[in-house]
Amino acid sequence: MKARVHVMLKDGVLDPQGEAVKHALHGMGFDAVGGVRQGKVIELDLAEGTSEADVTEMCEKLLANTVIESYRVELL
Amino acid sequence: MKARVHVMLKDGVLDPQGEAVKHALHGMGFDAVGGVRQGKVIELDLAEGTSEADVTEMCEKLLANTVIESYRVELL
Repeated sequence: MKARVHVMLKDGVLDPQGEAVKHALHGMGFDAVGGVRQGKVIELDLAEGTSEADVTEMCEKLLANTVIESYRVELL
Repeated sequence: MKARVHVMLKDGVLDPQGEAVKHALHGMGFDAVGGVRQGKVIELDLAEGTSEADVTEMCEKLLANTVIESYRVELL
């Protein structure tokens, strides 16, 4: 089975990568771009029977820094 | 309007970050984890009327390294 974890910075947390991407896009003439936020997506191949709670535990312990990041688990 | 771009390494391309995450998860006792692939998700605030073609052009020119990465555009 597969799971996909989406990790994004929480609102209000400065996103230097997103700012850099925005400036680069503006420099290339893409003026239609307002804000840019960049996060991670992690795809996991899991043994059958792995529960969403197991994946949530992986997020809490490793995949997301829960002080500044929020995460969303998607079982596929 | 908003768009979300999902950027992942193409199949067959070595994913050192994914490997590192896998080993770390195994070290924490999460043996149910097989493969791990890590990619980027980029959320863009865009001016009204921006088309999917515009976002695709941003991907081709900056957001994805199309030699080793594939991308998917989602207009929200």
